[in-house]
Amino acid sequence: MKTYLGIDLGGTNVRVAKIAEDGTIIATVKGPSYGQEGPEKVMGNLKDLVREIPGWKDCVGIGVGVPGPVDTKAGTMVLSTNLPGFAGYPFADDLKREFGMPAFLDNDANVAALAEALVGAGKGLPSTFYTTISTGIGGCLVVDGKTVSGKHGFGGEVANIIIDRNREVVNYLNVGAIENEASGTGLKRKYEEKSGKHIEHTGVVFDLAEEGDPIARECVDEFCKDLGQYFATVCCVCDPDIFVIGGGMTKSADKWLPGVVKQYKMMSHTAVHDTPFVLAALEEPGIVGAAMLPKSHGL
Amino acid sequence: MKTYLGIDLGGTNVRVAKIAEDGTIIATVKGPSYGQEGPEKVMGNLKDLVREIPGWKDCVGIGVGVPGPVDTKAGTMVLSTNLPGFAGYPFADDLKREFGMPAFLDNDANVAALAEALVGAGKGLPSTFYTTISTGIGGCLVVDGKTVSGKHGFGGEVANIIIDRNREVVNYLNVGAIENEASGTGLKRKYEEKSGKHIEHTGVVFDLAEEGDPIARECVDEFCKDLGQYFATVCCVCDPDIFVIGGGMTKSADKWLPGVVKQYKMMSHTAVHDTPFVLAALEEPGIVGAAMLPKSHGL
Repeated sequence: MKTYLGIDLGGTNVRVAKIAEDGTIIATVKGPSYGQEGPEKVMGNLKDLVREIPGWKDCVGIGVGVPGPVDTKAGTMVLSTNLPGFAGYPFADDLKREFGMPAFLDNDANVAALAEALVGAGKGLPSTFYTTISTGIGGCLVVDGKTVSGKHGFGGEVANIIIDRNREVVNYLNVGAIENEASGTGLKRKYEEKSGKHIEHTGVVFDLAEEGDPIARECVDEFCKDLGQYFATVCCVCDPDIFVIGGGMTKSADKWLPGVVKQYKMMSHTAVHDTPFVLAALEEPGIVGAAMLPKSHGL
Repeated sequence: MKTYLGIDLGGTNVRVAKIAEDGTIIATVKGPSYGQEGPEKVMGNLKDLVREIPGWKDCVGIGVGVPGPVDTKAGTMVLSTNLPGFAGYPFADDLKREFGMPAFLDNDANVAALAEALVGAGKGLPSTFYTTISTGIGGCLVVDGKTVSGKHGFGGEVANIIIDRNREVVNYLNVGAIENEASGTGLKRKYEEKSGKHIEHTGVVFDLAEEGDPIARECVDEFCKDLGQYFATVCCVCDPDIFVIGGGMTKSADKWLPGVVKQYKMMSHTAVHDTPFVLAALEEPGIVGAAMLPKSHGL
């Protein structure tokens, strides 16, 4: 079976793995990424880690997942908030030269989507739309085994989709952007604002709603309506074969996913009501998805 | 050069053409579609028209554009409001058996998108998002020369995208659906409601706005903001290499497109501000796009 090298690079940590084409993790190493110290240090460290993987030379290609939008054709990061100095750095070319095999770069949400599409919940389906809901909201469409990253790598950068223009200004995102309204952070913030109370974490809002707290109920209802509208919007654009949902908020999915699907149906044509909403199947979509990048390019 | 048969079937008329792979129309015949008389009559008539095309046997495949969503894998219409009896009818299979060549079916907005992507304004680009704005609003994403029609053929059925939930109920579409708010019909309706006046056609709203009519100005501003938000939303989902705009409203594009692009930029990351907004290049995208369906399937 073919094997690939997957690299999951963050601002703090980096993981490198040798992964089979069915998604099985064969070997893995990890360490600090030295993300604040610039490309030379980060790349040197990363190359050392690759050489620690037994049989890395047998792999047919390298894939890397990084935070933020990526120019997938150039193999470069477009923005690099968490990895200073990497915007425009010839990331894929550097690895290709170093290891003598094809190398590909994509956004970390996109590679997670690719993993779920190829060897996870969307396996075997023509298209998958992956959404991660945690402190933020990201996503990616995968069609015929390829991520739709788009002209600027902003395909699936769904955080800024306006769900309701008549909301409060929160930050640099659009007023009413889905990430501010229906991420875990957003739900917590809105409950705290409306109630005047401080809560430890987002899960408390669901607990309070179940106990009958009217403000918590209102917040959860709006959260479900906002996400339902988000999924209905995505369906109008690309009508995926499956919606796969990942991220920290999936831990409490039983508290909100049925409400989201109900709202999705209220805002969608009956013909699309049977689209499955499924939780992400993989434990480590980031590293597996990175390794799937060469596969998605035909290797 | 390879040639294809393209069929543009509507509720009233049908056109059949022999078209070269570069989009050149070689021969064309047209006639009434007998759309209200059921599949037997419609298909019999359509087959007769195909046989009137000189050298139809030299074509390598057939493509058909029809109104409404299509199950592209099955080659059937999902809904057939304008062609009673056709929902579920084995359209592509019937033509394939009759003429002994591969046959494909897709929505008429999707085939127009395909034409623009392959031989029109998006030629040579990896992805195109086509939007038609006239009495209604439709669209389609084309990636790597294929329409993203999705699980139920609803990919690009953008009419129902909610642009602002706090609007009036208009019809069966979602409250605040883009088609009701920013189609030609929508703009005319909203001006008439707000002003209490009757106008002959949508273009009058733009004329009145230029003359300083405050209600017309308000309507045009909202129209631009609504469409700007629509394009910003689509960009978040798929970040296309180009936005191509067709449909009747393009005749007055100079009156509104600059305003739409300005709003798009206000609601989008600076990285995506250079995405071109271009008017459809083809005179007959419907029939050309139908003929491009076999090409998009590798023929």
